[in-house]
Amino acid sequence: MQEFRLIAKIRELFPTPAGMTGIGDDCAILPQGDGQDLLVSTDLLVEGVHFLRDGIAPFDLGWKTAAVNLSDIAAMGGQPVATFLCSALCGDLPAGWMLSFLEGYKAVSERFGAALLGGDTSRSLSQLCFNVTVLGRCPSNRAVRRNAAWPGDRICVTGFLGDSAAGLKSILAGLAETPLVQRLRTRHTRPFPRVEEGLSLAGMPGIGAMMDISDGVAADLPHILEESGTGAVVDTTSLPLSDELRALCTAEGWDAVELALCGGEDYELLFTCRPDARIPVPHQVIGEIVPGNGIRWEGSDRDFAGFEHKFGK
Amino acid sequence: MQEFRLIAKIRELFPTPAGMTGIGDDCAILPQGDGQDLLVSTDLLVEGVHFLRDGIAPFDLGWKTAAVNLSDIAAMGGQPVATFLCSALCGDLPAGWMLSFLEGYKAVSERFGAALLGGDTSRSLSQLCFNVTVLGRCPSNRAVRRNAAWPGDRICVTGFLGDSAAGLKSILAGLAETPLVQRLRTRHTRPFPRVEEGLSLAGMPGIGAMMDISDGVAADLPHILEESGTGAVVDTTSLPLSDELRALCTAEGWDAVELALCGGEDYELLFTCRPDARIPVPHQVIGEIVPGNGIRWEGSDRDFAGFEHKFGK
Repeated sequence: MQEFRLIAKIRELFPTPAGMTGIGDDCAILPQGDGQDLLVSTDLLVEGVHFLRDGIAPFDLGWKTAAVNLSDIAAMGGQPVATFLCSALCGDLPAGWMLSFLEGYKAVSERFGAALLGGDTSRSLSQLCFNVTVLGRCPSNRAVRRNAAWPGDRICVTGFLGDSAAGLKSILAGLAETPLVQRLRTRHTRPFPRVEEGLSLAGMPGIGAMMDISDGVAADLPHILEESGTGAVVDTTSLPLSDELRALCTAEGWDAVELALCGGEDYELLFTCRPDARIPVPHQVIGEIVPGNGIRWEGSDRDFAGFEHKFGK
Repeated sequence: MQEFRLIAKIRELFPTPAGMTGIGDDCAILPQGDGQDLLVSTDLLVEGVHFLRDGIAPFDLGWKTAAVNLSDIAAMGGQPVATFLCSALCGDLPAGWMLSFLEGYKAVSERFGAALLGGDTSRSLSQLCFNVTVLGRCPSNRAVRRNAAWPGDRICVTGFLGDSAAGLKSILAGLAETPLVQRLRTRHTRPFPRVEEGLSLAGMPGIGAMMDISDGVAADLPHILEESGTGAVVDTTSLPLSDELRALCTAEGWDAVELALCGGEDYELLFTCRPDARIPVPHQVIGEIVPGNGIRWEGSDRDFAGFEHKFGK
């Protein structure tokens, strides 16, 4: 069963109670009755699927484990409040490994004011496994959802796209660690959740839909389109590409546009807004929401498809 | 690093903000400002450590995965509100397996009014892995904590102890599935969270400390004692043992008292209360809180020790 078929089955089996927002966005939304909404997201990271133990330092893995969850709160325009960490650890883990992991986890959590309030520790036979649940909050009905894009909206992203994917590719290819390669790898190992940007965008008149980019624009933008019932045109010549990404792609013969659209793990914000909105954060316009469905890629004759987990039969 | 040393390190690294209750109880407690407290707990289940795929039907595993988390809300005297389910699934999973799992999960969730509001699905290389986060609520400052036992309190449990452990032992020993064995196995595979009992106890004048029994009284009672700064006397002749447990232990030569104290996975409530409290739920008094520390086991010359996950070096 593919991931999205399974999720569709779960949505069918488990209807969301009135007043709450459940499956289908970066976070669930639970009204709290005091003028605030509670935001909740949770993510499981499994060794060999989501990370390679030898491919990332434990400090960085701890950082990233917290950061990608804080990014889900940022994606709704919320303020992180607390996280919960579950770990299943293997017996062959070196002394100090978990301590380094926790220090990385703490560094990014403190930066964004999220307390660690609980969790669970146990052992695992062969694969390290971590789960983070993050709680955030926002004023009632102010969370920015995926279903609010409208034809005519501009499609925008914060930051650069593709750096993280290039960093990962450089690790897998065993490239020497030049300063340029190092900068791209840091973008992969220590993503910086766009919490402040998300808060600013949630307060912007004319904001439409928003999500964070975890699987690449080519895989993530369709979620906004499906939830909003719209299509999109993306100008592949307008993608925000860093100098480092361009330089490494030139040197290695890699396709920067493909990395930017399909690579994933950028943890930048992808949002739409009315054309006359005054956008309060650094961003790049990469396309436009149009009636219909699907994505038309301008400036390229290629079709870009994202990554999907596959399992079952 | 042993589990409790790791948890101690986490508590040291991550102080809990004023007003919140973090690590050290069945749930974290976050005041919501509307006369309600939010309760949060999360648990990771890993194949080969917490369950054997061939040892439990997928419906039962789904039931149990939700039930043990709902039990954490029961343990605080709270009302379950919502759960979040993360799954990492292996490619060799038969068609329909996950659907049965979800049906079991749904059956117990609906019984206790908990909506499934989100989660995450991905693949895993070799071990199935599930994580549940559960949210509950209770009136402000009414959550029953582990740190509120007082010398002179009675120590009580709901239901029977040891049935679940005997059910598991019968599976591992390959015993034939007689009706008696079947009843004990059901106690292992479909634990029934004591949500109503927990709510009643939370409203009882004279309630002291409370938790649910996941690792066995011998391993769990020390948490109450440590958090409360007290000791206990437990009368091992007064444990609530079911007729089924007694019969199977007699037939197989198993030690019923050991299963009741050390077996775990009962998911009954362990609570303390003033001696004159009018306890509104079926229960058994098994001992008394005393000054000092540690547990004195009356009626036995044995020392009972619970199970602890070990990992790292």
